Amino acid sequence: MTTTYDLLVLGGGPGGFDAAVEAAAAGLRTALVETADLGGACLNCGCIPTKLWLGATCVIEELAAQTKVRVASGEVRVDFAALQARKDRHIAATRKAMGQRLAALGVDLVAGRGRVAEPHVLEVKTAEGSRTLKFRKLLVATGSRPASFPGLTPDGKRVLDSTGFLALPQMPKSLLVVGGGFIGLEMAQAAHRLGAKITVVDALPRIAGPEDPEVSKALESVFKRLGWDFRLGVKVASVATQDDCAVLTLDGESGGESGGESGSEELVADCALVAVGRRPNSADLGLESLGVTLYGPGYISTDENLLAAPDVYAVGDVNGRMLLAHAASHQAHYVVQRLLDRARGPYESGPVPSILYGAPEVLRVGLMAGEAKAKGESVLVSRTQLIANPIAQAHAATQGFVKCVWREGRVVGITAVGADVSRLAVTAALIVRAGWTREDAAGFMFPHPTLDESLKAALLADKEAA
Amino acid sequence: MTTTYDLLVLGGGPGGFDAAVEAAAAGLRTALVETADLGGACLNCGCIPTKLWLGATCVIEELAAQTKVRVASGEVRVDFAALQARKDRHIAATRKAMGQRLAALGVDLVAGRGRVAEPHVLEVKTAEGSRTLKFRKLLVATGSRPASFPGLTPDGKRVLDSTGFLALPQMPKSLLVVGGGFIGLEMAQAAHRLGAKITVVDALPRIAGPEDPEVSKALESVFKRLGWDFRLGVKVASVATQDDCAVLTLDGESGGESGGESGSEELVADCALVAVGRRPNSADLGLESLGVTLYGPGYISTDENLLAAPDVYAVGDVNGRMLLAHAASHQAHYVVQRLLDRARGPYESGPVPSILYGAPEVLRVGLMAGEAKAKGESVLVSRTQLIANPIAQAHAATQGFVKCVWREGRVVGITAVGADVSRLAVTAALIVRAGWTREDAAGFMFPHPTLDESLKAALLADKEAA
Repeated sequence: MTTTYDLLVLGGGPGGFDAAVEAAAAGLRTALVETADLGGACLNCGCIPTKLWLGATCVIEELAAQTKVRVASGEVRVDFAALQARKDRHIAATRKAMGQRLAALGVDLVAGRGRVAEPHVLEVKTAEGSRTLKFRKLLVATGSRPASFPGLTPDGKRVLDSTGFLALPQMPKSLLVVGGGFIGLEMAQAAHRLGAKITVVDALPRIAGPEDPEVSKALESVFKRLGWDFRLGVKVASVATQDDCAVLTLDGESGGESGGESGSEELVADCALVAVGRRPNSADLGLESLGVTLYGPGYISTDENLLAAPDVYAVGDVNGRMLLAHAASHQAHYVVQRLLDRARGPYESGPVPSILYGAPEVLRVGLMAGEAKAKGESVLVSRTQLIANPIAQAHAATQGFVKCVWREGRVVGITAVGADVSRLAVTAALIVRAGWTREDAAGFMFPHPTLDESLKAALLADKEAA
Repeated sequence: MTTTYDLLVLGGGPGGFDAAVEAAAAGLRTALVETADLGGACLNCGCIPTKLWLGATCVIEELAAQTKVRVASGEVRVDFAALQARKDRHIAATRKAMGQRLAALGVDLVAGRGRVAEPHVLEVKTAEGSRTLKFRKLLVATGSRPASFPGLTPDGKRVLDSTGFLALPQMPKSLLVVGGGFIGLEMAQAAHRLGAKITVVDALPRIAGPEDPEVSKALESVFKRLGWDFRLGVKVASVATQDDCAVLTLDGESGGESGGESGSEELVADCALVAVGRRPNSADLGLESLGVTLYGPGYISTDENLLAAPDVYAVGDVNGRMLLAHAASHQAHYVVQRLLDRARGPYESGPVPSILYGAPEVLRVGLMAGEAKAKGESVLVSRTQLIANPIAQAHAATQGFVKCVWREGRVVGITAVGADVSRLAVTAALIVRAGWTREDAAGFMFPHPTLDESLKAALLADKEAA
């Protein structure tokens, strides 16, 4: 007789794994089907390896900062092969720990590709053949993969997506980064520290397009001081491996001033990283038969309860709400709470912090001034410069700012750019969630000296029109 | 005709300065009397110079951590003379900016020693002679100075207090730290990075005495791995300069196992730092005539409204409530709000975060398990180890933990020890203030990957008896 699972989870990334753990811990009979590796893109080819790169190399930036103010000198060498080996060990150990956790909780882990055969029945193609799993509720948490476009398809040789780039045995001496979003900028920062000459190419006129324009400007300014080249507002006709190099051809019409004649311009580097967004893994899951609908580039539509169809939930990247690991985990928690009859009302994310790691870092949470204006809402802004903060001074990394967005006397958004501003993320999210007034900020004891005081200073600063 | 100030502030440290700024900005006629330098001990000989030392040298710790996992190698030299010059420039620039801020707000800054002559009248001895200042309200914010005891008096040669130590032109090769509290431990960490061999001596059986015993143990373990020596639970008979060295004599009765015979044991180093606490600056202010009373080693008694006598407030170190810069600033805000008729009810500090900076760091906020037990209260604790956190892994600094204290299902205290845990301080304070339940923690979106997730993990971990 076949088991009927209370919860069947498709995908073992942050959303799927957390859901399986929480459901099993609460006594639900749970199975998890994963095609590839536990941990998903986040652990295996996304956030975690990037942070290991940035963490291991941050000493290079710290030394550069103290050298610039003539306090320190010296030389730091990072052994990239050793770093890659450490990264791989860390990822393998984390995967193993995740597997052990699932096993300890009695979650059935099924390695294979799942497809809904009929309502409440999933067929899984495993290495040993096909298996049929029955379920009461299905959670689709299949995540996303790097996007590619015609002419911009990674070939795995000199043109790589983020997954291929993180697996490199050697850091190239020069790197074309196609796409000035957070993924490209984080990897470019690590590559820069490891010796690569960076050129960032983007169709938008500024990097970090979704951020406040002042943030983009500050980022670009810091990166230019590091010696990076930028080709912004240009269209890429193609990027391909030629003679052991990555050759990027700009669209002749878009080259701008430096594009010269109408002929196409080429950029050449040892390697190109294509980081032009991500696409949902929603195909071939057999979901159409259940009434699941897709939108945009294939995101699964979900209702206010994260239901994609009766008895079918979708969380994380694949539902397109917010392509962030912590959003997936948060949605997973809600779904399990609903299954346990503990969640009241529709899913509410609360403020969703978005972070660029590196040096500088970027933090954004809540409503930005530009978004408010676009909606016709009237907001005020207040800000402080990091140079006034003693911790920023101590680290000789004083470029950047914190900016608050106010509506009707309450904070509705916070953004920051500069060294270490990621550490303000949770506090900023709590403040935005609580909708602090200026008096709330004045009355709360911020420890001294901390970078967090820059948040307080920004909250207490004079407000002006956005 | 003499001006009568709405607010006369005695002392230009964090409490006095902030009070003067806020009062003047709100339209109160304000004067500030300062004997020495604007900024008080915090800016001139406390938190800020220490953080500049730690910030400039943290690259040494980061490199050591990555070297230990064989990812990085190299050498970093910190030019101590250049660091001291940078520190002095930073302090001078900050003082100048503070003076300009007061001037811009119309605060009268009077350099001199103030003494209350009669109710609502202060006599100030200035370089140009005596001045009489009339006031409606007086705020005493005169701060504190390093404590010394018989036999433990810094002589300014090889035996220094924290002020003298921060002014050293050269870092000694060996250092005796008398007092294993936060001040001694922060300075010792900087000294260690700058090449000094460290020996910590304390009468208590553990360092960081006010902290959770597990925190003390973790700290000691890390410092021992750095090669520090500890002589704990011993009494110091004397410390004095002899032949260009600091010579510390242990009380023969207390030397413990390693003390050998009943004869006294001597410890010798290039320098001794006496960091055995601080004492309030409450003498010779003429406050007795106003009815102000003192307690303990001379702290000014204050009532629930921070009043020391009618029309006389006291904030900061001098009132002995909490010897922390941010506590002083917070109290100052309350007093000014009261003067403006905006504060309702008695002074409430909210959770007061206490932080040891360095690597590792310590954070404490709210009630600790030991404190609860001592009061006969029943609490539970939950914890997580930092080794499970990906950011700790990325920085190869995984020793340490986060521990939460629960009472009746709500968080009442949080402590942490490990690399960078100071960044959890504000979040921890907000969580303790709100009295989160486990469900609150589960339902809040913590960004991934962040060190803050260790806080969430600790909040979600199984609770056990304290």
